[in-house]
Amino acid sequence: MSSTEKDESIFKALANATRREILDALKDDPKTTGELCEVFPALNRCTVMQHLGVLEAADLILVKRQGRVRWNHLNPLPIKEIHERWIGPYAARAVDLLARMKSDLESEDTPAAT
Amino acid sequence: MSSTEKDESIFKALANATRREILDALKDDPKTTGELCEVFPALNRCTVMQHLGVLEAADLILVKRQGRVRWNHLNPLPIKEIHERWIGPYAARAVDLLARMKSDLESEDTPAAT
Repeated sequence: MSSTEKDESIFKALANATRREILDALKDDPKTTGELCEVFPALNRCTVMQHLGVLEAADLILVKRQGRVRWNHLNPLPIKEIHERWIGPYAARAVDLLARMKSDLESEDTPAAT
Repeated sequence: MSSTEKDESIFKALANATRREILDALKDDPKTTGELCEVFPALNRCTVMQHLGVLEAADLILVKRQGRVRWNHLNPLPIKEIHERWIGPYAARAVDLLARMKSDLESEDTPAAT
């Protein structure tokens, strides 16, 4: 897969809200496909597996099979690459500062409770 | 705009290869719309402006007008938020290490020139 195709598959995978929520559910620890289905009771197993397939093809999740159980792990490397593409290690400190200034300003905007 | 709608506009904006290349072109310094049109000779000015409109609506670029000139700046904050959403400050160091291990392994895989 060329790097343009890889990019395309990553950003298309992230363009869907359910797939972003699946990644949220995997952030703190890996989950089996069955556990993920419990997190999304509105979706049937087949839909969950389709989304997992798109995420796996984009390398956003890594899958380990243990007998009949499939463990889905979040792969943080493509996310790190997005950060490096547009921010990079040198600008990261400045952006941290900017984010802190923004949140300070926003908390000043909040009117004090009377 | 709710945070879900904001997310939706950010990831839909990033799902297009040309818009990602526009952000690449703005990474190191801001550019006027005219300068951006020169970077993308295959696109007409109207198409470039449509893409800039989508990026501005998603808050991925910040626009400053100076007379008739429009300066487009990359806004790194939404990119930082993507990183924090799935990696976060605590895991960042572990992910750096992982990325370094991966690139070391890949360079070992490369056959030595004979």
